[in-house]
Amino acid sequence: MHRTRVKVVQDALDANQTIARANRADFDRAAVTVINFMGAPGAGKTALLERALERWDEVEDEVRIGVLEGDIQGRTDSDRIAEFHVPVVQINTDAGFGGECHLDANMVRSALPALPLDEIDLLIIENVGNLVCPAEFRVGEDRRVMVASVTEGEDKPLKYPLMFRTADLVLINKVDLLPHLDYDLDRFIAALDAVNPGVPRLQVSARTGEGVDAWCAWLLQAVATRRQVA
Amino acid sequence: MHRTRVKVVQDALDANQTIARANRADFDRAAVTVINFMGAPGAGKTALLERALERWDEVEDEVRIGVLEGDIQGRTDSDRIAEFHVPVVQINTDAGFGGECHLDANMVRSALPALPLDEIDLLIIENVGNLVCPAEFRVGEDRRVMVASVTEGEDKPLKYPLMFRTADLVLINKVDLLPHLDYDLDRFIAALDAVNPGVPRLQVSARTGEGVDAWCAWLLQAVATRRQVA
Repeated sequence: MHRTRVKVVQDALDANQTIARANRADFDRAAVTVINFMGAPGAGKTALLERALERWDEVEDEVRIGVLEGDIQGRTDSDRIAEFHVPVVQINTDAGFGGECHLDANMVRSALPALPLDEIDLLIIENVGNLVCPAEFRVGEDRRVMVASVTEGEDKPLKYPLMFRTADLVLINKVDLLPHLDYDLDRFIAALDAVNPGVPRLQVSARTGEGVDAWCAWLLQAVATRRQVA
Repeated sequence: MHRTRVKVVQDALDANQTIARANRADFDRAAVTVINFMGAPGAGKTALLERALERWDEVEDEVRIGVLEGDIQGRTDSDRIAEFHVPVVQINTDAGFGGECHLDANMVRSALPALPLDEIDLLIIENVGNLVCPAEFRVGEDRRVMVASVTEGEDKPLKYPLMFRTADLVLINKVDLLPHLDYDLDRFIAALDAVNPGVPRLQVSARTGEGVDAWCAWLLQAVATRRQVA
């Protein structure tokens, strides 16, 4: 019995990789750079996306953004993003038992027909708020960005290593609250470097706007790098 | 293929219920009240447990506490709890692929031999930090307590409804930070009542100690209620 179950899990993972590759091929054909945007519930993913979209026109009007929002239920986040007049599609994962806690390649694939891929250059896929399972499922992304807010404590890289280890950028959010917290940023950085040495990290605040220019610059660089490779 | 996979998931859930009932029978035999303690990563579960343990001797020295800590990796939390000289067992879930994002009944069962059930009256099972899957797996608990910190935003009950809906108590943590946040507590309460009308809720701060007496009183009441029923 146990062996049978393990086999099924393996099949499911392989299916995910197959579909992630198909997504990747579609993104390549449309020359879209894709970010898998992850973090704990309430880390500030949607807010940091809003801050980037707010100033996007000043930053770079030739890179057009689209957004795919993953949530178990509801469309709160996509409604927030739609305010910025960018293409946005909401995926609800509650068809799974009790609600799937992550996006997988097939869910993203099911949303692709609703996205005008030829009219965007950068697709940001905001995953379900969760530090565990989203990191286990590639969806066809070029890069992974995760948000770790300082209110979550310094030990999270050691407790949820896979997501921190596979991130290409870590946004350390809510730094405006540092004066009000017992939080040792050096301890967090040491934990981060223990699981993903030297990974790029930016201190940001969705509330004050600190670091948002650097976050936009990183996104533009990701698009530029992809174009050079292509 | 699809039908086969659904069947396996159903089997897995049934197995969980079977084992949860076996755990429940063992807890009943030992007259132990069991709390499944859940919340997002960094919500403050361990810190709120520390605050309760700190003052437990003053509160009630006849109710003996034991703790079971669930984490993907590491023993940070159990080391913190061991400072209070209570029985504590660490479960690491990283044997699953990429690390299981929740405790299930079988993981808890595997830890029972390491717990002196006859020497405790109240067992607090701190689940993996995650607002989704822990709520899908009963482990044999009497009650579910969840921590929702105010830094996570007001919309979480609507986005992660199952955990909020099945909670018997919601600890609204980090209220000391309210003056520094754009957080509308009334909006959170409205969202909470939309998914779990009237569920007991306590405003607490693991940092200042606010509300910790009420949290201890709720735990004692849970033990007393169980004893009346038994």
